[in-house]
Amino acid sequence: MRAEPQSFDRVLSSMCTEPHEAAREAAERFLATNPGDPATYPAIADMEGEVVDALGQIASLSDPHGFVASGGTEGNIQAVRAARECSTARNPNVVAPETVHFSVRKAADVLDVELRTTPVDGDYRADPEAIEAATDENTAAIVAVAGSTEYGRVDPIPALGDVATDAGAMLHVDAAWGGFVLPFTDYEWDFDVAAVDTLAMDPHKLGQAAIPAGGFLAREQATVDALAVETPYLESATQATLTGTRSGAGVASAMAAIEALWPEGYRETYERQQELADWLAEELAALGLDVVEPSLPLVTANLDPTLFDALREAGWRVSRTATGELRVVCMPHVTRELLEAFLDDVRALRPRAAVAADD
Amino acid sequence: MRAEPQSFDRVLSSMCTEPHEAAREAAERFLATNPGDPATYPAIADMEGEVVDALGQIASLSDPHGFVASGGTEGNIQAVRAARECSTARNPNVVAPETVHFSVRKAADVLDVELRTTPVDGDYRADPEAIEAATDENTAAIVAVAGSTEYGRVDPIPALGDVATDAGAMLHVDAAWGGFVLPFTDYEWDFDVAAVDTLAMDPHKLGQAAIPAGGFLAREQATVDALAVETPYLESATQATLTGTRSGAGVASAMAAIEALWPEGYRETYERQQELADWLAEELAALGLDVVEPSLPLVTANLDPTLFDALREAGWRVSRTATGELRVVCMPHVTRELLEAFLDDVRALRPRAAVAADD
Repeated sequence: MRAEPQSFDRVLSSMCTEPHEAAREAAERFLATNPGDPATYPAIADMEGEVVDALGQIASLSDPHGFVASGGTEGNIQAVRAARECSTARNPNVVAPETVHFSVRKAADVLDVELRTTPVDGDYRADPEAIEAATDENTAAIVAVAGSTEYGRVDPIPALGDVATDAGAMLHVDAAWGGFVLPFTDYEWDFDVAAVDTLAMDPHKLGQAAIPAGGFLAREQATVDALAVETPYLESATQATLTGTRSGAGVASAMAAIEALWPEGYRETYERQQELADWLAEELAALGLDVVEPSLPLVTANLDPTLFDALREAGWRVSRTATGELRVVCMPHVTRELLEAFLDDVRALRPRAAVAADD
Repeated sequence: MRAEPQSFDRVLSSMCTEPHEAAREAAERFLATNPGDPATYPAIADMEGEVVDALGQIASLSDPHGFVASGGTEGNIQAVRAARECSTARNPNVVAPETVHFSVRKAADVLDVELRTTPVDGDYRADPEAIEAATDENTAAIVAVAGSTEYGRVDPIPALGDVATDAGAMLHVDAAWGGFVLPFTDYEWDFDVAAVDTLAMDPHKLGQAAIPAGGFLAREQATVDALAVETPYLESATQATLTGTRSGAGVASAMAAIEALWPEGYRETYERQQELADWLAEELAALGLDVVEPSLPLVTANLDPTLFDALREAGWRVSRTATGELRVVCMPHVTRELLEAFLDDVRALRPRAAVAADD
């Protein structure tokens, strides 16, 4: 095999990153394990329970239920699926702000559930009144975002919890990206401060574990039980995950990363990356760009499409929001030096892009 | 982290195994890659296309479409989902032999599709007449098994393809476990000899790749397109996989294993493991057990439940069929020496178990 993996030295578009050294080591050591078959692979199955406990601690849930998922998409699918199963509605629906991750649309499609999206407020956050207006007696769940993919915004989770409670619906929080930095902010996002039923938070994103390591947490065991199917020939009774054979490398890697980094390592990472994001936002604004003030380590700014293309041609892995804005995710591999080189290229390519656009 | 992974020296219950050395090396090298985001991780995304081409070659499909899935469960879910999407029936159903893997039941549950299971023939294989009798105008797919989990049986795929064609339904073949040994047998199982629409075959099982590496193949691009959802902020148009962020380690590992082993390495492995399975079946029969003659490297035999428990207590990772039979999967890590030690323990523990059962 001649191919080489990409390096991270120009990656500004990913919500994943280089795993922590301890996480990489654990992934390699547990490569040939499958927590989906606990009777054959008991060590990694036990460790999965420990990861769920640790995730519960981070999300302020003292007696957590759940599992290590393949990622945020599975977390969101399983949350909607559990809500569908627990609902008595014949045609259950799910209500979410329009800023919800596209995996929730995928979940609705897969599960054949109606998804109702609502406009956000002037700061890209869910509007509880709009959410409430969209709910009805068939609403099985409200999905809120704690760290949105495009703007890094945190929805007003406690208010959405109240709306969900009044509607008799479950509240799912998608903290797939934000979960490992939110504990160090003033945002209200977790099981302790709101009527959250389920929550997705991914060790393989800001948790600095190796892919695949997502986290699915539930306040009640009954929610997980709603997902369970019977499992002959596994010497275990049921399986609540969407996938069958699963990556023990992901589980071990999540455990190793959390052991190495929670809480102080994650706090330091958050503070460093947030400072970088704030600085980048100022620098881009100084260049005359229309910048969305970052609330988490993610910067979004209006950028000429020709300049965007020129940056990609220059090797920068950048991506766009649905409306075409530049999106820079300040993951742990992103350094001041990296962003300075990026800004140099923005400055250097800007005139040329402007000329090309005039052609 | 003090925990250690299990060793494989007493594992007879798993359809996974130690990855091939080249597969392990590739998994470690591509640990921090995500083929789910091709604009950021182009090398691994390109490699995924090469893996699909290689899987197509193994399954006799010259222009294959599909992707590397998280495993056989995703392959089966996506096959049923594609059939549901392509069906014009209001309440589509899926017909499968009762020997189908439990992930097809999970798929039906997740996708809210009716699953109709039919009795098998005297040799644990799908009965085309029973399958045909269960189909109607709402049948979206027939699911066949090429290497069943409990008995290693191969359904009569060409006949089932005819039934599917007549019913206007898709035919999905679950070769998740069998796909990497069937090319060396006389069984008719692949795209070339039957009207197969989709097929699951997992590099992370007999393909000797690292977990997670499943394979989902489709004859037509339209089948994959039926699964696609739009993907903002990924600089790629759509995503047909069930999961979002995905393991590049699995993809690279699959490629490395196939490069190292296809076809001669897989052929040698098949011949060695089949010979072992045949020998084990004879030895168990000589001990008076009621043995199901192996058709692939998997041996099933009636065993006293007390003896089964005693073997598990002695450290053997064995598992049971739904009706309680002992099931031994002769994966590549299973050697003659390992099976001799197992048989020694069967002989040694048998009298004691018999006594305990009489208590």
